[in-house]
Amino acid sequence: MGLSCVVEAGDPQLATEVARQGAVDVWRQLRAGALDTALAERAARIDLDVFARQLDRGRFRFVIPGDQEWPAGLDDLQFCDPVQRRAGPPFGLWLRGPARMDASTARSVAIVGSRASSAYGDTVAGDLALELVQRGVCVISGGAFGIDAAAHRGALAGPLGSNGSGAAPSPAAATVAVLACGVDVSYPPGNQQLFAQLAQEQLLVSELPPGAHPTRLRFLARNRLIAAMTSGTVVVEAAARSGARNTATWARECNRPLMAVPGPVYSALSAAPHAMIREQQATLVTSADDVVEMISAIGAVEASSLFGPVAGSSVGTAAGAVAPRPTDCLEPIALAVFEALPASRVRPVGEIALTAGVGVSRCLAELDALEELGLAEGTERGWRICRTGAGPAR
Amino acid sequence: MGLSCVVEAGDPQLATEVARQGAVDVWRQLRAGALDTALAERAARIDLDVFARQLDRGRFRFVIPGDQEWPAGLDDLQFCDPVQRRAGPPFGLWLRGPARMDASTARSVAIVGSRASSAYGDTVAGDLALELVQRGVCVISGGAFGIDAAAHRGALAGPLGSNGSGAAPSPAAATVAVLACGVDVSYPPGNQQLFAQLAQEQLLVSELPPGAHPTRLRFLARNRLIAAMTSGTVVVEAAARSGARNTATWARECNRPLMAVPGPVYSALSAAPHAMIREQQATLVTSADDVVEMISAIGAVEASSLFGPVAGSSVGTAAGAVAPRPTDCLEPIALAVFEALPASRVRPVGEIALTAGVGVSRCLAELDALEELGLAEGTERGWRICRTGAGPAR
Repeated sequence: MGLSCVVEAGDPQLATEVARQGAVDVWRQLRAGALDTALAERAARIDLDVFARQLDRGRFRFVIPGDQEWPAGLDDLQFCDPVQRRAGPPFGLWLRGPARMDASTARSVAIVGSRASSAYGDTVAGDLALELVQRGVCVISGGAFGIDAAAHRGALAGPLGSNGSGAAPSPAAATVAVLACGVDVSYPPGNQQLFAQLAQEQLLVSELPPGAHPTRLRFLARNRLIAAMTSGTVVVEAAARSGARNTATWARECNRPLMAVPGPVYSALSAAPHAMIREQQATLVTSADDVVEMISAIGAVEASSLFGPVAGSSVGTAAGAVAPRPTDCLEPIALAVFEALPASRVRPVGEIALTAGVGVSRCLAELDALEELGLAEGTERGWRICRTGAGPAR
Repeated sequence: MGLSCVVEAGDPQLATEVARQGAVDVWRQLRAGALDTALAERAARIDLDVFARQLDRGRFRFVIPGDQEWPAGLDDLQFCDPVQRRAGPPFGLWLRGPARMDASTARSVAIVGSRASSAYGDTVAGDLALELVQRGVCVISGGAFGIDAAAHRGALAGPLGSNGSGAAPSPAAATVAVLACGVDVSYPPGNQQLFAQLAQEQLLVSELPPGAHPTRLRFLARNRLIAAMTSGTVVVEAAARSGARNTATWARECNRPLMAVPGPVYSALSAAPHAMIREQQATLVTSADDVVEMISAIGAVEASSLFGPVAGSSVGTAAGAVAPRPTDCLEPIALAVFEALPASRVRPVGEIALTAGVGVSRCLAELDALEELGLAEGTERGWRICRTGAGPAR
């Protein structure tokens, strides 16, 4: 926590020291002036108790590598950019919001693009985000106007978004904003309401301490977090020179699939996506199905997964692959029935059969089997997804 | 000529026989009833003198493999599709129009797409065609509504199109329509005016004899000609099931670069181009420069070439590569000056220098050098491209 308050985001030297000696030792040396006098002075002025009190009151959380909520994908930043070493992994992450960080990033996609997007780009970003959330994929983006905000708003319209039902919040967020400032700072101020909603229902994330303000360098450092914590990055609209290209570069360095959405050839905002596709840096995607196919290393059709990571599975491997899901092994009809299940309120079997496109008796048989697998939960009034994850017969 | 009147377009068996024994022997056997009784009856009814008289009057031309005007790329059809053998090379081509077939196809690109195109697709096809003609690339397409017609109209707006200047026609066409009916048949009738203009100023091509009407099979056979005679195929708009996909398949079988233009993800007409790009069958292109880069095997930036194939060069190699051009070896500034030269009317050196972005004295020096190379022609009132092709100092 001290390091994240004193050292500039992404500092490669300090990250290397922490990887070698551990954060506690580095912090001690830094305070003792053994590393850098300027840093030592800043460290002496920091009152960590202020933050500790806010953590106690539940305003924020602070997670470090090894914590259960730590997004495993970030560890890949150790292996990125080994030559230029512009930025190392973060020391920790400040979190604000009810969703779990690990559950959110376990199956997640970054949607990035231009701040000055077109109506076309905003619509694509919003639709894509909504469809991804409907497929159980968490959307991760920054906090800017344009594509970032459109992606968050689209995701919030989905099943994990704000639904006013008062149900217990899902462990995974529908959408996560990773900021280049403190999680209590609204930048740009025009997105204040969006940040408030994300803090209330979803998740805000930053490697910078509360109160920190954004700088150009911090935006660039932030981009590596978005690229590394997700299973893939989609560029929706970006001009030839755009910050989204920086995120795209990080995605490629972290060995995550880079995807780009095409648009009209006359649109300058589609120039960067088209160039990335043309140069085979990015794969052309036009739908959430395309995106899910790209991030599913095993190539299987995956169902929406509303629960967190499965016990015993390795989430966010170094290859950027998505962890296997209990639904991966389902036959097509069982999968269709599973996908027709609601998340919270129960649904009668007749409706589920209709949505899944099977007869009622076949549907009931499949529901029984899904219950055996711990994937469905039956009540007197209907069925829903079993929210505890791994079930009795796993 | 007899075979083209009697045998269905693309017949693979007869094409194999012709490749083995030559057209004259096959025609003799066919007339003698040694190959197929139905074909023999049709051959007996054919009065080739009718065609011969029309050829004499200059209404049409008929070219066969080995003729100077024969497009060398068509010979690659012998090596295409060796397993299924759905179609062989044509026996000959009926031509109508002042442009030379070989000069037109030597540096050419097919633009294909949907008949029921959108305004976006028509605009892209027209702009792309115009820009290609401006770069000395001949546009080749079918005769349908939609993308085909838009491509022809765009090409006609270019420097080799109808300009009313009364200058002698260039050997290469700006645009060529390859038809699935006789070159004197207007199908669809709504494009009659377009066909008349192409016959007057450019070139109409078919492997079917005059008077022949189109059928579904003939459209499919025609597509192989478009793919094989060009250096690459661009799909502008096409629905998931579209004839353009057939042309695309032939382009790939002939080892020609397949290119596709992206569009809005919400457009069903961009579904096929997007799928081709996504599956890495086609390269994404957004401009004529992208296309020229793809068809230039040597990777060099090529200048507009208004003259026919260079003596001694092999045009249309089996690899689908473009023949080398005298301008290939020019330095960037010389190329810029060359590209600023007009085709017919002369232009003062001051204007050329302005367009090329160089000083007048440097421009004059480059013009002298270009004249030495036989690429430019100076008069008292200004300069133009030397239209005889290879010059004195070659």
